[in-house]
Amino acid sequence: MSPASHLIAIDWGTSSLRAALMDRDGTILDRLQSGDGVMAMLGRDYAERFESLFGPWLDRHPTAVVLASGMVGSRQGWREAPYVACPASFEDLVRGIAYIEVEGRGRIGLVPGLVSDQAGPAPDVIRGEEVQVFGGMRLNGQASGIFVLPGTHSKWVVVEEGKIARFHTFMTGELYGLLKRHSILGKLMPEDSEPPFAPAAFEAGCRLALSDETGALLHRLFSVRTTGLFHRFTSEELPSYLSGLLIGEEVREAKALIGDHTPGPIQLICREDLARSYRLCLEAAGIDSAWIDDAAFLGLFDIARRNALIA
Amino acid sequence: MSPASHLIAIDWGTSSLRAALMDRDGTILDRLQSGDGVMAMLGRDYAERFESLFGPWLDRHPTAVVLASGMVGSRQGWREAPYVACPASFEDLVRGIAYIEVEGRGRIGLVPGLVSDQAGPAPDVIRGEEVQVFGGMRLNGQASGIFVLPGTHSKWVVVEEGKIARFHTFMTGELYGLLKRHSILGKLMPEDSEPPFAPAAFEAGCRLALSDETGALLHRLFSVRTTGLFHRFTSEELPSYLSGLLIGEEVREAKALIGDHTPGPIQLICREDLARSYRLCLEAAGIDSAWIDDAAFLGLFDIARRNALIA
Repeated sequence: MSPASHLIAIDWGTSSLRAALMDRDGTILDRLQSGDGVMAMLGRDYAERFESLFGPWLDRHPTAVVLASGMVGSRQGWREAPYVACPASFEDLVRGIAYIEVEGRGRIGLVPGLVSDQAGPAPDVIRGEEVQVFGGMRLNGQASGIFVLPGTHSKWVVVEEGKIARFHTFMTGELYGLLKRHSILGKLMPEDSEPPFAPAAFEAGCRLALSDETGALLHRLFSVRTTGLFHRFTSEELPSYLSGLLIGEEVREAKALIGDHTPGPIQLICREDLARSYRLCLEAAGIDSAWIDDAAFLGLFDIARRNALIA
Repeated sequence: MSPASHLIAIDWGTSSLRAALMDRDGTILDRLQSGDGVMAMLGRDYAERFESLFGPWLDRHPTAVVLASGMVGSRQGWREAPYVACPASFEDLVRGIAYIEVEGRGRIGLVPGLVSDQAGPAPDVIRGEEVQVFGGMRLNGQASGIFVLPGTHSKWVVVEEGKIARFHTFMTGELYGLLKRHSILGKLMPEDSEPPFAPAAFEAGCRLALSDETGALLHRLFSVRTTGLFHRFTSEELPSYLSGLLIGEEVREAKALIGDHTPGPIQLICREDLARSYRLCLEAAGIDSAWIDDAAFLGLFDIARRNALIA
């Protein structure tokens, strides 16, 4: 089979999907996104949804290579691409790609996730972010360092000699949402709205979380209630304070788990608003950082290119 | 006013209330409970509900003293009995009682809560449990030690020379409920039921949480997902594992915050099932403990008795 001239790169996650149609140079010709993440697809037909989303691109470029990363390749997704063990090189990841044949459209490659510390007491998994990390390495020409992907489940990924050596997940974003929406702490905050970011409250939360090496998250979360009760922060400031406590705790835990061997600044890969929060917190912890806003499509392009799937 | 011969002792908390009719010797003559905690009373008439609950007892004993502790004395309750600062003696607590006159029924005493470390970055508050701690001290003849009241918001109370010196709240129980009901971790657990306690899974959670001094709750919570994913625990065992992780983290944090100066075993005041979990975890942490199942009514009786309100 001769190499194709186009790539359809899909980042198909838990709550949404986004995709790019790219040419042989990696230029993005078209984009699309949808709320039909893996959760919304439960019990629905993937092939049908794939056709409705990507049929128009494939009509124009019938030989395009299709690669998808993220939860679409999980047991709860379209088909499982089993986890590849760390340390994992780019080539290990590529070898783990699972292919699905879609009638009339050829095959789709599902990029596998990675598993870290599988034999330990707390194994860890990643699915989707690993492609962004390889994309980020390529973007920076960087073969070692720490990449951080903040979000619902933040990932701290340690890269050594071009391989993903290990990583740690932190449930920071999910906990923020749970506490804001469903806990007693949320009752002190504005309902049904996300007030503007309050830097002083956020930094106070970070400082408290980073104030000692042993931490005390279960205890300090309660200070969201008491600082509200004693009017130290307004109702509008409390979400930022809570966010500071949680991100500060994430940074404290990551420092303890990963140790101090950071070669160069931490590479953040995330939306701009999250990058602002994380950079403030990392600064408070005395850690240098740099920001990459997105590397998913680049990572998928790199897989296609280095495997001579497109040319 | 001559001392009364009966006490109506009410523990009126956030989600429920329970009360005892006691004679001058502290013998409980009758009990009642209701789901009309402070949350359920929002916007409703306290005097009316009080009459419907306690009218029958007061008809029989019109001169009975009425004392209520718990969130009923908070800003969101019937009337605020402002927080008393730590260190707080039994007498300080009594001086803080706020009285409400109820037409035709005389006055009701609302026991205040306490505030700890009010000037610090994370002030802490307690309302209801302080009465149990004084009750527990009386029960044990103990003037110093650590009392632990596990629950939605666990309280670790440090008693020195008969005073509540300080305390720390941990949002352990609330977080357990949130994670089980609303998070991605809960999706791996049985729906709408609380499976039987699984000691091995619980202890595995405790051991992981207690495995180092720095802790890593945001990270280790994710192991509930991965240990489920890799079939280390069954769906029915995962709630116990999650509970172990959280209670283990609470014990780790409390050790770091309070330090090692425990004179004698920790006194647990709680329901039997919680006592079993906490004692298993404390044992794993090398901490001795003893159990008191309830001291709320005793604490209120002690307030009435030592102030010569009943005789």
